[in-house]
Amino acid sequence: MPPVIPRRIANAFGAIRGLYEFFLESDFAQRGHLPGANLLVVGDPQEMALPGFVAALRGQLEPQNPQWYAYKLDERPAQEAAAAGLRQRTGIGFLPEDVHLTNGAFAALTVAIKLMGDPGDELIFLSPPWFFYEAIILAEGLTPVRVKVNPATFDPDLDAIAAAITPRTRAVLINSPNNPTGRIYSPEVLQGLAETLTALSRRYGRDITLISDESYSRILFDGNRHHSPAAYYPHTFVIYTYGKTLLTPGQRMGYIALPPNMPDREAWRPVLIAGRHLTGYAYPNALMQYALPELEMLSIDLEALRARRDRLVPALRGMGYELHVPQGTFYLLPRSPMADDVAFVKRLAAGNVFVLPGAAVEMPGYFRISLTASDDMVERALPVFAEATRTA
Amino acid sequence: MPPVIPRRIANAFGAIRGLYEFFLESDFAQRGHLPGANLLVVGDPQEMALPGFVAALRGQLEPQNPQWYAYKLDERPAQEAAAAGLRQRTGIGFLPEDVHLTNGAFAALTVAIKLMGDPGDELIFLSPPWFFYEAIILAEGLTPVRVKVNPATFDPDLDAIAAAITPRTRAVLINSPNNPTGRIYSPEVLQGLAETLTALSRRYGRDITLISDESYSRILFDGNRHHSPAAYYPHTFVIYTYGKTLLTPGQRMGYIALPPNMPDREAWRPVLIAGRHLTGYAYPNALMQYALPELEMLSIDLEALRARRDRLVPALRGMGYELHVPQGTFYLLPRSPMADDVAFVKRLAAGNVFVLPGAAVEMPGYFRISLTASDDMVERALPVFAEATRTA
Repeated sequence: MPPVIPRRIANAFGAIRGLYEFFLESDFAQRGHLPGANLLVVGDPQEMALPGFVAALRGQLEPQNPQWYAYKLDERPAQEAAAAGLRQRTGIGFLPEDVHLTNGAFAALTVAIKLMGDPGDELIFLSPPWFFYEAIILAEGLTPVRVKVNPATFDPDLDAIAAAITPRTRAVLINSPNNPTGRIYSPEVLQGLAETLTALSRRYGRDITLISDESYSRILFDGNRHHSPAAYYPHTFVIYTYGKTLLTPGQRMGYIALPPNMPDREAWRPVLIAGRHLTGYAYPNALMQYALPELEMLSIDLEALRARRDRLVPALRGMGYELHVPQGTFYLLPRSPMADDVAFVKRLAAGNVFVLPGAAVEMPGYFRISLTASDDMVERALPVFAEATRTA
Repeated sequence: MPPVIPRRIANAFGAIRGLYEFFLESDFAQRGHLPGANLLVVGDPQEMALPGFVAALRGQLEPQNPQWYAYKLDERPAQEAAAAGLRQRTGIGFLPEDVHLTNGAFAALTVAIKLMGDPGDELIFLSPPWFFYEAIILAEGLTPVRVKVNPATFDPDLDAIAAAITPRTRAVLINSPNNPTGRIYSPEVLQGLAETLTALSRRYGRDITLISDESYSRILFDGNRHHSPAAYYPHTFVIYTYGKTLLTPGQRMGYIALPPNMPDREAWRPVLIAGRHLTGYAYPNALMQYALPELEMLSIDLEALRARRDRLVPALRGMGYELHVPQGTFYLLPRSPMADDVAFVKRLAAGNVFVLPGAAVEMPGYFRISLTASDDMVERALPVFAEATRTA
């Protein structure tokens, strides 16, 4: 008798099958780890970790009391440092007790989504999405509702969101700066979204929660500023991870933060404790919590990322690729010279250049380049990009 | 509009309300952190972490390559070390690729339970249980079915388990060595359980999974041996955590291991990857995975635990307490001299001695003592125990 996979897990699996095939079976899976592979696939480090990151962990390693490695919920100094960082960046008066620490944004999103509803309840997410939004919603037994962004601007389509909201809508999930489009939502867009959600919450007699994935809020180019929707809509769960800003996704830490003007933030507190317990004890490890105040001050070299962007964009355009200039995040999103982006990605892989097919992020006909590649990888990739489009 | 808590989360919350009240509101919550508190409540360290634990982390802190802190799934050396440890302890030929690493046993249990079924499907757990079994099952939208252990022996009641199994039963969850009873299930008991599960799986045409929580498999006294049910029943998910053996529950690492004679173990592999992704990326941090081969060789001082057990048991009996001698785990489980164990625990707390009321583990009329207290705490607790029972 083969194992019977539960229906909701099979559904979730369906939403990530393409991604799994790419990561577990493709050319990338088979040859991406070999020497000479040029890795422009995901936001993973291709250079040594920040010395400050290692120093921050080293500085907290030696136990300072018997409970140093005991069970941790939210350590107050970590909450205070995270709240201070949020206040400084957003201008919103976030309080330490409203920062609910998690072992990364994946966990923060899972906890937030888990707390949104019961089977039959709907969550709206925007397409193109991060890989796992739909799968997490399905695995929680909820109903995902996909709304396409405006294809010209990559901004949320407020009319389409309004049209998708029903009495069963419990939350809308957005991501700015956006993976994969690099778009930062403007104050005007966020104000419009807030008005839409407020009006429809009133119509249906229940607050619609805005889950705001702000994983890339510190990965900004050209003096662009990030705007948190929490400044416009009080029923916002702000999701953050240190894994992008520090480029250390293997040491997981992030949080769910609630703005001080959310009327229910005290009622949410015990629920968010339970939500983290019931997501496999999704608190960050003790060592990461102790290091948080130092880690909060650190960032990877954004200038190096920008330089890579500005090396790649004109070079690719010169080869005939069509692509826009991202305002933030790690990613470029060129159109694939072949309609079949998976086939084109395979062609690049033959030249040892690994990128993500657009199909994996609901952008068929595109491919995604991560700027977290090293400069050497970028230089070695350029002639392969040139050759691949000549023969496409 | 206050937040509307989803029904399954409210149900789960109901199952842990008493526990939360104790940990967030009781005397322990208010005064347990003050100097002079004698903490016999949970399996948390009251002495400095093992020097070998700190050394193992320190030895892996400096990046050895650019991907040192990149996204981690299962690191092969960690799987190999964990499988070698399992093989040595159980005599079962566990393979590295069947060790699915998680950030602790809480995550491993959540992943396993998540993969068991859809709403309407039933999971059997034994009472007295670990705090969170019922809540995890409810949060996953499944139906928990409670079966009491034999009250005389604390062994599973096989007739009661057989009677509780229905066509909707997907899994049975057991825990040996058992928290809170300290009972180690014998080969005979496990053989009987395997026969019961095999017969009823056949009757209903679907394999019932045995989820075996072996968190305390290395916390053994008096030369007792732990027996894994995986040796008797191939459809077993073995759950383990390093947090008990090392007494470092704040740095989370554990696993789900499948025995080599499980017919479906290859089919489970991608499902277990998805299960960890969909439990908030429930992989252990990179640093913990690198340290695993060294951590696998380490253990807290079991002799000190045993000595504390053997100091407390006769001393408490001499005061008139009734209690049995645990075969393993951290816990003593005396009868409360007052029928109301919560009131009795409050009386001990007035003397600065903190223990867990039996009500929190479905053992009303008992209280639980953790042997992870320091020797000083134990000595200071003894006169308080004596005084409390004199006046009970």
